[in-house]
Amino acid sequence: MINVAVLGYGTVGSGVVEVIEKNKEEINKKSGEKLNIKYILDLRDFPGDPYENKVVHDVEIIMNDPEVQVICETMGGIHPAYEFSKRALLMGKSVCTSNKELVANHGPELIRLAKEHKCNYLFEASVGGGIPIIRPINYSLTAEKIDGITGILNGTTNYILSKMAAEGAGFEEVLKEAQEKGYAERNPEADVEGHDACRKIAILSSLMTGKNVKYEDIYTEGITKITAADFVYARALERSIKLLAMSRECEDGSFYAMVAPFMIPVSHPLYSVSGVFNAVFVHGNMLGDSMYYGRGAGKLPTASAVVSDVVDCARHIGKTIMCFWDDEDVKQANVEHIKHRFFVRTKAALEKEAVDIFGLIRVVVADVKDEYAFITEEMSEREFKEKAQKLGCVINRIRLES
Amino acid sequence: MINVAVLGYGTVGSGVVEVIEKNKEEINKKSGEKLNIKYILDLRDFPGDPYENKVVHDVEIIMNDPEVQVICETMGGIHPAYEFSKRALLMGKSVCTSNKELVANHGPELIRLAKEHKCNYLFEASVGGGIPIIRPINYSLTAEKIDGITGILNGTTNYILSKMAAEGAGFEEVLKEAQEKGYAERNPEADVEGHDACRKIAILSSLMTGKNVKYEDIYTEGITKITAADFVYARALERSIKLLAMSRECEDGSFYAMVAPFMIPVSHPLYSVSGVFNAVFVHGNMLGDSMYYGRGAGKLPTASAVVSDVVDCARHIGKTIMCFWDDEDVKQANVEHIKHRFFVRTKAALEKEAVDIFGLIRVVVADVKDEYAFITEEMSEREFKEKAQKLGCVINRIRLES
Repeated sequence: MINVAVLGYGTVGSGVVEVIEKNKEEINKKSGEKLNIKYILDLRDFPGDPYENKVVHDVEIIMNDPEVQVICETMGGIHPAYEFSKRALLMGKSVCTSNKELVANHGPELIRLAKEHKCNYLFEASVGGGIPIIRPINYSLTAEKIDGITGILNGTTNYILSKMAAEGAGFEEVLKEAQEKGYAERNPEADVEGHDACRKIAILSSLMTGKNVKYEDIYTEGITKITAADFVYARALERSIKLLAMSRECEDGSFYAMVAPFMIPVSHPLYSVSGVFNAVFVHGNMLGDSMYYGRGAGKLPTASAVVSDVVDCARHIGKTIMCFWDDEDVKQANVEHIKHRFFVRTKAALEKEAVDIFGLIRVVVADVKDEYAFITEEMSEREFKEKAQKLGCVINRIRLES
Repeated sequence: MINVAVLGYGTVGSGVVEVIEKNKEEINKKSGEKLNIKYILDLRDFPGDPYENKVVHDVEIIMNDPEVQVICETMGGIHPAYEFSKRALLMGKSVCTSNKELVANHGPELIRLAKEHKCNYLFEASVGGGIPIIRPINYSLTAEKIDGITGILNGTTNYILSKMAAEGAGFEEVLKEAQEKGYAERNPEADVEGHDACRKIAILSSLMTGKNVKYEDIYTEGITKITAADFVYARALERSIKLLAMSRECEDGSFYAMVAPFMIPVSHPLYSVSGVFNAVFVHGNMLGDSMYYGRGAGKLPTASAVVSDVVDCARHIGKTIMCFWDDEDVKQANVEHIKHRFFVRTKAALEKEAVDIFGLIRVVVADVKDEYAFITEEMSEREFKEKAQKLGCVINRIRLES
């Protein structure tokens, strides 16, 4: 029997308990042992809950119980999740988490501690919700040199952009609706400004490089400036607008990561990833592209990923599963040198100047009044910025992903 | 150091050697040991090949060398691959294979032998080429009750159908072109009749159920009867025609699997899986749908999957990785009871009869002369067959997947 403690009985934590209960037959079989929820840590009481008598308010009870071998940290936030995780690992208890913020901030340290104490720090649920992506990178693509990852990693923004594309509505209007439906938080900044996707691509990029990719250094642009008019142009181009999180190891050994809205063509497999779904594209030097797709959030999908980590811990009691994510920070290339094509909207009156300044461009014809829109050749962020400044007026600009 | 022997220096076998050589830095790091190709078994000699001096013609040399811990069986076919694999496992040597025929025929026995001799029989490359799918099912979706798998599992037929869709060409014409380009075999039967996809869905279904799904019992229909006219209708319906391999565990506990061409809508994530790409959709009771997409064949993608198995073996020397695939055969439901909607083409003259016999139907309007085409309500295969017989003339019929 493997005794499990769940820290935090909120959405994901209660999902973990539900998944372990509902699928106990499969899970116990695949664990090779019976999983037993011994404690649930929460500040609140849950009178009437079937697990009421498992609820404890003092983390010491869990830490001091040598029978507890696996801990599900589903609290979120850095403190006290960090301190609790660290203490557990120091005592040889494995930790499974859905906490992307903690993993992005302290991943290498916690992974090292797990190794030193012959247990595991696993975080499948921290990226892409229920989509298996951490384990495919760590266990499956082991014969590959992975050199690129491109993902739709945030369900809230993908829901908003999908709605804007389908209904021609504006950002504020759709955001409000998403908030009413519970798809967006009251304070939506972490999602719509791209911070959530940024932490997730930092985690994936760290696993890709084997070193530490600091999320603070990743260029991050949200979707708040995307308008209904942008989608009119996107349709005319047979493209959609998606918030992409990407990272690349270039041939010269340099590395960059960025989060920003991109226009992607209908032929791109990420094009049809709609609503709250997430998808991650991984490029390897032997396999080429592979993609992983599914529900990027939600109680049960996220809990399912946490429990799959628990099963992995149960299968590896006393043994640390390999995971390469060193303390050493990756040097990130200056974003100014990264090249893309740009979709640009300017005033109709500036048509001649646009052609003079940007040279070879492709005009985008769509039913938007008083505007002139075009697509540039591939150029660096810096070159684009200089030319845009010269032009004087850019209503909006969106990068293109071919 | 882990000594590896490769059985069969053909396309996949030489790919294995190439992948291990090219990505040795990553692979050795992820294995935790240096991989060394000690022998290559082939009937031929390879003068001038950099691995020329590793080639042996006698399998005894490999079997009797206690230093060989992992064997890559990339010979294909049942004999002597079966005998060689069995002997290796009996001696505690792990076997990694791309041989779907052997896995579909003797999987449970070879997995059991591996377990009994504390080694591994791994077969990631046998389904979906380079796409990680066996390991996601066995290692990642461990908290799920998987109740459905739907895949595009054969690159040749997907290439042919994609070409027919894009160019309006007929089956024979595109097959000939695919043969010239090397995308289809001179004897294309195994692909175009669905046998290859059938073996692959048998393997996936066995892992889904934990029991043995006999491929001989799976209803299998190929793509040879699909015509250019079918695609005219498909376009009118905003659908495409794909060869799907599917299996389902129904709520009443019954199980069925089938391989057949299906019309799928543009909104279906498998719709945009084109050319030689493969994709597998997995449905779990907690996660819902997840999808795995990538190159389903080809030298390096397939070899990459074989080598990822070798890495897994290296990480688990002396220990068998859990895999649930028992000897016991799954009882497959009679295909006659399976329900689908059907797209049906008949003579224009039979319009009235069609409506009389099939009742509520949706007429499909497309530019095909002298025909009347419609979509039925959901009905069982048997009911459809009876009604079609009553109608007297069915030019073609294709199942719909919603």
